[in-house]
Amino acid sequence: MGIGLPEFLSIELATEHPQVIPISVFIVILCLCLVIGHLLEENRWVNESITAIAVGAVSGTVILLISKGKSSHILVFDEELFFIYLLPPIIFNAGFQVKKKKFFHNFLTIMSFGVIGVFISTTIISFGTWWLFPKLGFKGLTARDYLAIGTIFSSTDTVCTLQILHQDETPLLYSLVFGEGVVNDATSVVLFNAVQKIHFESINGLTALRVFGNFLYLFSTSTLLGIGVGLVTSFVLKTLYFGRHSTTRELAIMVLMAYLSYMLAELFSLSGILTVFFCGVLMSHYASYNVTESSRITSRHVFAMLSFISETFIFLYVGTDALDFTKWKTSSLSVGGTLEVSGVITTLVLLGRAAFVFPLSVLTNLMNRNTQRSESLTFKHQVIICWAGLMRGAVSIALAFKQFTYSGVTTDPLNAAMVTNTIVVVLFTTLVFGFLTKPLVNYLLPHDESSQNTGNSRCKQSAPGSPKEDATLPLLSFDESTSTNLSRAKDSLTLLIEQPVYTIHRYWRKFDDTYMRPVFGGPRPVNQPEC
Amino acid sequence: MGIGLPEFLSIELATEHPQVIPISVFIVILCLCLVIGHLLEENRWVNESITAIAVGAVSGTVILLISKGKSSHILVFDEELFFIYLLPPIIFNAGFQVKKKKFFHNFLTIMSFGVIGVFISTTIISFGTWWLFPKLGFKGLTARDYLAIGTIFSSTDTVCTLQILHQDETPLLYSLVFGEGVVNDATSVVLFNAVQKIHFESINGLTALRVFGNFLYLFSTSTLLGIGVGLVTSFVLKTLYFGRHSTTRELAIMVLMAYLSYMLAELFSLSGILTVFFCGVLMSHYASYNVTESSRITSRHVFAMLSFISETFIFLYVGTDALDFTKWKTSSLSVGGTLEVSGVITTLVLLGRAAFVFPLSVLTNLMNRNTQRSESLTFKHQVIICWAGLMRGAVSIALAFKQFTYSGVTTDPLNAAMVTNTIVVVLFTTLVFGFLTKPLVNYLLPHDESSQNTGNSRCKQSAPGSPKEDATLPLLSFDESTSTNLSRAKDSLTLLIEQPVYTIHRYWRKFDDTYMRPVFGGPRPVNQPEC
Repeated sequence: MGIGLPEFLSIELATEHPQVIPISVFIVILCLCLVIGHLLEENRWVNESITAIAVGAVSGTVILLISKGKSSHILVFDEELFFIYLLPPIIFNAGFQVKKKKFFHNFLTIMSFGVIGVFISTTIISFGTWWLFPKLGFKGLTARDYLAIGTIFSSTDTVCTLQILHQDETPLLYSLVFGEGVVNDATSVVLFNAVQKIHFESINGLTALRVFGNFLYLFSTSTLLGIGVGLVTSFVLKTLYFGRHSTTRELAIMVLMAYLSYMLAELFSLSGILTVFFCGVLMSHYASYNVTESSRITSRHVFAMLSFISETFIFLYVGTDALDFTKWKTSSLSVGGTLEVSGVITTLVLLGRAAFVFPLSVLTNLMNRNTQRSESLTFKHQVIICWAGLMRGAVSIALAFKQFTYSGVTTDPLNAAMVTNTIVVVLFTTLVFGFLTKPLVNYLLPHDESSQNTGNSRCKQSAPGSPKEDATLPLLSFDESTSTNLSRAKDSLTLLIEQPVYTIHRYWRKFDDTYMRPVFGGPRPVNQPEC
Repeated sequence: MGIGLPEFLSIELATEHPQVIPISVFIVILCLCLVIGHLLEENRWVNESITAIAVGAVSGTVILLISKGKSSHILVFDEELFFIYLLPPIIFNAGFQVKKKKFFHNFLTIMSFGVIGVFISTTIISFGTWWLFPKLGFKGLTARDYLAIGTIFSSTDTVCTLQILHQDETPLLYSLVFGEGVVNDATSVVLFNAVQKIHFESINGLTALRVFGNFLYLFSTSTLLGIGVGLVTSFVLKTLYFGRHSTTRELAIMVLMAYLSYMLAELFSLSGILTVFFCGVLMSHYASYNVTESSRITSRHVFAMLSFISETFIFLYVGTDALDFTKWKTSSLSVGGTLEVSGVITTLVLLGRAAFVFPLSVLTNLMNRNTQRSESLTFKHQVIICWAGLMRGAVSIALAFKQFTYSGVTTDPLNAAMVTNTIVVVLFTTLVFGFLTKPLVNYLLPHDESSQNTGNSRCKQSAPGSPKEDATLPLLSFDESTSTNLSRAKDSLTLLIEQPVYTIHRYWRKFDDTYMRPVFGGPRPVNQPEC
């Protein structure tokens, strides 16, 4: 979404700085969005995304009328602006605000939904479109296009559902939906980039394996880079203690380093999303304890604000873009054809989602059955998880623009058709599914019942030092008798087999408290684990 | 300072996003600057600006070596980026953080220094350069150029001195230097723009009057626009109370509206600097009381951080730009000639500064003699005020680029010479005068003595309800007997004549408490005036 100036607006006054008018108009609309979003907060149906899209569509119409049908845009889409300026704050904020304990407790489940899920969904959507598009008379797309379409429509937008779920009432559900949302975005983008690297001329049996290898390489290196930058920042902040002189410097360092992690990842052609996400996790885990109280408060709000503005900006853009008649005219499809194709995509999105949520949920419940945990995913939860991932949003739009346009412009009818299809799908899923989310969640999880359905009540009941928390103790007490230690070691070995994630998490906690926190910062280790 | 990519750096990896490399390099250098600045905080000679310029020069040299003498730049100068993205946060922050009470107490003095001072300084520098440049063999500049040079070198950079003065120890001095710095920047830019509008073909006796009229128009409308946007923001924040749902929205609104005020001013060809400054003053006076506690803390730090990053960025750029050999080669002057011309400019800057600081200080002291205030500007204070305004900084650079280049590039030898001269003057004043500032201030105002020299001690002694503060009382007590009121009214009339600014300030306070604050927000009116 670069800065472009519609001809009709270029009045003499602002000739010196041509960006001034579109920036002003966009800021006014953004403010309008904020105010309307605030006024509709209590509303049963509407959420932030829907408000932004609606305000975007209305302003698009106004601009269309003023320009006499020439243009509905204030800004010209520029996927570079999206990937370099708008996406990093959103993802970094996700990492920075994530409830790390819950996230890592449910790590395996989240990863299976976020990674395996995207692979399954991409496969179903790619094959489905490849099989069905020609039958609808929509022909001419290449194999790369179909694979790209698969990844484009596998990235979900869970913001809408997260606004409705209550983190305190349904912590397991919330952390799964939140965690999957982030991992899913990262996986989709990484997979999209992996698809771009396939040489379709020399395709053979190894190609799938190579894509997967490429994916693993990108995934691990990006994660490591994010962790590295996060640790360096924490170390620098802890060692130099900027707060002695000014909290401004602390803040500046945090913001700049966060952004640098993304830029470095892009520089080395890694996945900036993953890097900046893990950088955010590390920073909130270590760095935020090394700064002054006011820096801690400020950083949290700054990242939240940047993320909020970026998100609103993107949905606003989607709203104005829906009225871009140039693309509709260029498109090879009629309006009816577009609706048919979009319908097919939406159906495939539904199928692709259901195809992995329910089997993987059953698998998760099976894995958890052996453990002492009572937190299992009920069918209602599974429906909500499935539903939460039906919305398509900013990442889909950005990837579609990246695949099918050159800086937001395309003259190819096929590509224009795919862009309009993406916009229709995003609009439909966000508006229709988005509207239904609040009623659905309220129906499935009435406020009174919800806290009993989840593991939350159990967590609230269990005092600090509940059975599972005690699993840390064996390793913390080195000065006890050998026999006690031995029997405890046996216990913890048994636990490791029965509750792999939980036990690994305990070991990690110990390692963290003993080696990491003294170097990189953090709250003083407490023996009383939080609930 | 737009984003440009030196050829040698455009390795294959980052072809997709050409901005990635320069942004990464610049962020790394910025972080380096922050760390070095922090480590040298306690140092007797060095300040932020000098650190940034030095780091910039070193990185410029490194890039020069890597590129084998081709380029010393990471970023290409773009005055648009400066005026649209870097300057607004700096000025807004100045307005937001200004100690309003002190600022408005000394309003007349600040305005006379900031406005009349710039006029005197511009006149001296313009005539001086017009008279002396041809004698040095530097010919060919137009009348407009000479006037522009006058305004370019009349904008001061007081950041360096402000870092050294102690706001608590020398509040009068601090508020004068700070206030003059802001008003001076605004006046220079407004005057620069007024000079651009002169039609030199039809110049006559009315031209000077027209420039002054234009200046007054710009000054008043810009101020009103800033006040308007500030009031609207405060009103919206107070009425809607965003904090009920999220502090993120509050923050977003404040940041967006602040930026909008600047953009609107630019849109209507007013002075964005003045607008955004007064918008900042109004927002901190009203709006910041309408938001949640965390938003208040966050907003203060966010604006400080943005301003800090922008300033560092600019000085870094000046550092790298000093090594731009293309400009040196294009310049019509030899190195010796440049030093001569720069020497003349620096001398004129000194003269122009002294020519108004001392007379205006004497005038201020005369005006204050009749009042009960003991705060007069001692000769030491006058020397410090004069010194504080000797440094030239970012605004000079930006105006010079605006006058003499087209997006940072010039092929005209005369223009290139003026750009290099500006850079030399900025470097010389910032480095040499900057180095001497700390020792000078410490010599003139030793820590023990300083608080006695200023009005501060008196202010500290006077309990709430000191004589001058009582001047508000007459108007606050409507229910007293008429005779008392009459005699008090007489008193306050006498005060109005003797202490015009103070009494106006009292009336304003009353108006503010009665009418403004209930509508636009603020702390509950207290009868105990703060010291």
